[in-house]
Amino acid sequence: MINTICWKNNGIEIIDQTALPFEEKYLHIQTTDELIQAIQKMKIRGAPALGIAGAYGIALGILELKNNGGNPEGIRKISEKISGSRPTAVNLKWGVERVMRAVLSGKETNNDNFFHTALAEAKSVHDEDIDCCRQIGMNGESLISDGSSVLTHCNTGGLATGGFGTALGIIETAHRNGKKIHVYVDETRPLMQGSRLTAWELQKAGIDHTLICDNMAGWLMQQNKISCVIVGADRIARNGDTANKIGTYSLAALAEKHRIPFYIAAPSSTIDPRTAHGDDITIENRSQKEITHVAGIPVAPEGTESYNPAFDVTPASLITAIITEKKIFYGPEYYFN
Amino acid sequence: MINTICWKNNGIEIIDQTALPFEEKYLHIQTTDELIQAIQKMKIRGAPALGIAGAYGIALGILELKNNGGNPEGIRKISEKISGSRPTAVNLKWGVERVMRAVLSGKETNNDNFFHTALAEAKSVHDEDIDCCRQIGMNGESLISDGSSVLTHCNTGGLATGGFGTALGIIETAHRNGKKIHVYVDETRPLMQGSRLTAWELQKAGIDHTLICDNMAGWLMQQNKISCVIVGADRIARNGDTANKIGTYSLAALAEKHRIPFYIAAPSSTIDPRTAHGDDITIENRSQKEITHVAGIPVAPEGTESYNPAFDVTPASLITAIITEKKIFYGPEYYFN
Repeated sequence: MINTICWKNNGIEIIDQTALPFEEKYLHIQTTDELIQAIQKMKIRGAPALGIAGAYGIALGILELKNNGGNPEGIRKISEKISGSRPTAVNLKWGVERVMRAVLSGKETNNDNFFHTALAEAKSVHDEDIDCCRQIGMNGESLISDGSSVLTHCNTGGLATGGFGTALGIIETAHRNGKKIHVYVDETRPLMQGSRLTAWELQKAGIDHTLICDNMAGWLMQQNKISCVIVGADRIARNGDTANKIGTYSLAALAEKHRIPFYIAAPSSTIDPRTAHGDDITIENRSQKEITHVAGIPVAPEGTESYNPAFDVTPASLITAIITEKKIFYGPEYYFN
Repeated sequence: MINTICWKNNGIEIIDQTALPFEEKYLHIQTTDELIQAIQKMKIRGAPALGIAGAYGIALGILELKNNGGNPEGIRKISEKISGSRPTAVNLKWGVERVMRAVLSGKETNNDNFFHTALAEAKSVHDEDIDCCRQIGMNGESLISDGSSVLTHCNTGGLATGGFGTALGIIETAHRNGKKIHVYVDETRPLMQGSRLTAWELQKAGIDHTLICDNMAGWLMQQNKISCVIVGADRIARNGDTANKIGTYSLAALAEKHRIPFYIAAPSSTIDPRTAHGDDITIENRSQKEITHVAGIPVAPEGTESYNPAFDVTPASLITAIITEKKIFYGPEYYFN
């Protein structure tokens, strides 16, 4: 378990993921503007963790309005701002909306009660995420044989969630059950969530792993060094098309060519009932500087144009199974009823 | 034309490719040990450029032995050391052997004559490389339509050759012939030859380009943004299997899936008659630190293990055509007679 996020001293405490793996620094977020900044700068990231951040964000927003003597109706505006701070991961919006529903459906007559309702609901979102991820781990574990070499991309560990991972949670569960697993970790350019975060979590968990550049994954598959691929998801459309960290689509296409199972692991809150098809998913484009600079140091000539989509969409046809806390969805059974 | 390498003041002058794009620094190499170091540290790199470096290296070796009063036979040992300094690119060995043959076949009776023969042959290797690359450019240009978006990997420009590129030479030729070309440049982890070198050359040549992370290429193909892929080669086996910078195999597999032409551009000296099949090509594994650090800065937790093959092998079946100075070889016609 990682202390990714919690409610503390009337604010949200998060581990600063941009400082990892070199510094374990905790930030105490006291305003919704600070929260939005932290989300956009990816100090907190990972679809399920963003869901929890959104949920706590509503409690924070109510507190903020109360302290400023503002009208509780202003919380609608704040909820929209938080929801829109990153457009692709649906969990953020889901967490915000779930707490908003609890607040709006109650019969509270004063700000204090609004706040307590919101905070209680946000804590439920957080607790349920942990349970949900543990269940994903148990469900998915059955797909990982003893002695497997698992390829993963980006970070789907405790840092990406309420504390227990999704794809990495499955690997951790298999490891705890005594299976010998070797993990190949895609470094995950441009922001290096693989090198910085996944390698850090695997080191802490004592799970064997090898870091590779993203462009090496296909070559490893070609040499029969990969048993399966497991990644997370930022949004799953009703038809099973899945948005996840850029590079996921290529891995899925390469896994198909090499007949390697390709799994998505995500809580069912990642399935967006309002998105019918992958084409309907908004892809966030991030700053060009994330590509032209590494750790603040330029790696390309000044003035170089770059293209930086944060996500891509993998069609359902390339996904062997989607592992949720409810069940493992196979093949064309992507109706998520 | 780039001043990648030349013979000057009884030594080899190279542009230091590890200092680019931020500094245009020229190094004057005066001993074969310095040359081997420069090759291994990739201060000079690119298969054709290594061929020229190997050729000049023999002249330098003879000079060195002469100055040390050594036996000219010692040049055999030096030639082996230079040839073996990087194992995958066959051109290095080819350049060394070509000059060695000229030296050994001559009837020289003294060191001075050995040296002059070697230097003259090395200069021929260099001059021929430039002509050869221009011809590759003209041959390959026919494959690039006006308005194309071309994806390339690593650096195959003047820096990788005697001054005029292979894959990038084709793009440059098409551009000079008035075709509107947009180049997508894979940054090429771990050593960023795309960001550092290809973007620099394209900027100098005034050719439109966009830098991407290697893991974005598949997503661009999926969105129909890539007309064709052109890359270089470090060694081509007799059956057409091609070793090139790590990541090339994945691009070829992704291009196949998206029915995008995938071209290799290389001088025919890259075809190794002694290598029957891709499996026979030795792949250089480089320092793990190239992955765990970027520009000297750590990007992964201390102690993280990584895997760093410098090349991969693309089977001939995934290659639409191999463009050499002699002709364009298509499909199963890979006999190179």
